Amino acid sequence: MSEIITSTSNPKIKFVRKLHDRKYRDEFNVFYIEGVRIVGEAYSCNWKICDVFYSSELLKDDFSQELIKSIRKQNTNLIEIDKDVFRSISIKDGPQGLAAIVEKRSFPISDILVGGLWVALDRIQDPGNLGSILRTMDAVGAKGIILIDHCSDPYDIRAVRSSMGALFSLKIIHVTSKEFIEYLEKNKLLVIGASDSGKTDFRLECYPPNMILLMGSEREGLSDDLSSACKSIVRIPMSGKSDSLNLAVATGICLYEIYNQNNPIK
Amino acid sequence: MSEIITSTSNPKIKFVRKLHDRKYRDEFNVFYIEGVRIVGEAYSCNWKICDVFYSSELLKDDFSQELIKSIRKQNTNLIEIDKDVFRSISIKDGPQGLAAIVEKRSFPISDILVGGLWVALDRIQDPGNLGSILRTMDAVGAKGIILIDHCSDPYDIRAVRSSMGALFSLKIIHVTSKEFIEYLEKNKLLVIGASDSGKTDFRLECYPPNMILLMGSEREGLSDDLSSACKSIVRIPMSGKSDSLNLAVATGICLYEIYNQNNPIK
Repeated sequence: MSEIITSTSNPKIKFVRKLHDRKYRDEFNVFYIEGVRIVGEAYSCNWKICDVFYSSELLKDDFSQELIKSIRKQNTNLIEIDKDVFRSISIKDGPQGLAAIVEKRSFPISDILVGGLWVALDRIQDPGNLGSILRTMDAVGAKGIILIDHCSDPYDIRAVRSSMGALFSLKIIHVTSKEFIEYLEKNKLLVIGASDSGKTDFRLECYPPNMILLMGSEREGLSDDLSSACKSIVRIPMSGKSDSLNLAVATGICLYEIYNQNNPIK
Repeated sequence: MSEIITSTSNPKIKFVRKLHDRKYRDEFNVFYIEGVRIVGEAYSCNWKICDVFYSSELLKDDFSQELIKSIRKQNTNLIEIDKDVFRSISIKDGPQGLAAIVEKRSFPISDILVGGLWVALDRIQDPGNLGSILRTMDAVGAKGIILIDHCSDPYDIRAVRSSMGALFSLKIIHVTSKEFIEYLEKNKLLVIGASDSGKTDFRLECYPPNMILLMGSEREGLSDDLSSACKSIVRIPMSGKSDSLNLAVATGICLYEIYNQNNPIK
């Protein structure tokens, strides 16, 4: 029978805490996730789970027990930890008692060629916005996300949490703006951008099922180079004092217009 | 000539820090705001500004200088503080050097009778979501927000910040669900709710210009009592694994459907 980790200075526990820092996630190519739903999603989407941490004292519901049983059958390191140790690694106020270290995945830019709806983000800064966008993308059946230049980390625990696990069913591609623009031209891919300074009301644009929606960063919007690569740039009309919307909200509004046009009500 | 506060233990500075806690905001009926744009909004919307704090070393741009000049002409306490003291009260990584203490405003429920578009939120928890919703409401020209039962505080610095100052141009009403339901019935007000378990696709509903959009809490959705008070409950279709969207995103999608129906493209 395996032992229970009872010390917060156990090397495994120290390693988990390091993963809150992007530097270590990049170095070890793994990330930390927490919560029954999110661990369940990683498992059901077949991501490689390296270690699972659980606290029997905290984990109560049947779903979690079943999940632990299924994980036990895989080649996964299942580590029981004391509830206070669990709280020391947790990012939640009331932790559910299930967490994991998962291997990152990288997808090549050529995956865009499968078609469908993609979202490209230019230098997005806020991990909560990034996670919310992933969650909406899952809801509209998008294929994946293209993160251009220096973006917030999709494996940041705040991004994973606000994605509600949608991260695990989407492809994530990292590119520079130069690579992205060259790839678009070479493969004649259709990109429609969204910006406060866009010329077309977003309701007037026609969105085909195979396309990339390009959104700018929270602070600076779309770069000139990326704007030039768009077939058109749409604008969400605004009648108040605000000249912009929250990025996740604006992306959601555009994604549902695209969804609506491609999924008429029967 | 007035003195510059150079100590972080100055009573005024200590008071500012207390305002990060809702208890003190409620007790003193004031709240803390920060940033040139947000202080500017509070000023231009004629909210009562009690104290303005600025750091000449940090405040550089012309707009801020003009704003300080305008504020100086009012009956407002203008307090210069040292840049390190400013950093000690700031919630930003790179503070702009302008902050203020503003008096809260409360609006009676009867303000709903002016008509227009209103949003009611049932026990919203996240201040960032609340702020993003206020920001979208301003963009679609909504009149105000009705916060039902125990909601996140709209005067929380995170809510104010993510509202981008939209807070100052909207009415904020606090009610219990009982008061709200009684008031709706008495005044025959039209409420349309949104929920994952709604019967009608949100694109099929007709939204009149005078209405209340009711959204449930992040975790629990709409209560049964509130659901019963709705003329109808709409659902945003979802085709992925997700069974819900981020609350601010979902509210944004519904608000823009309402906006689109009432503001046809010319």
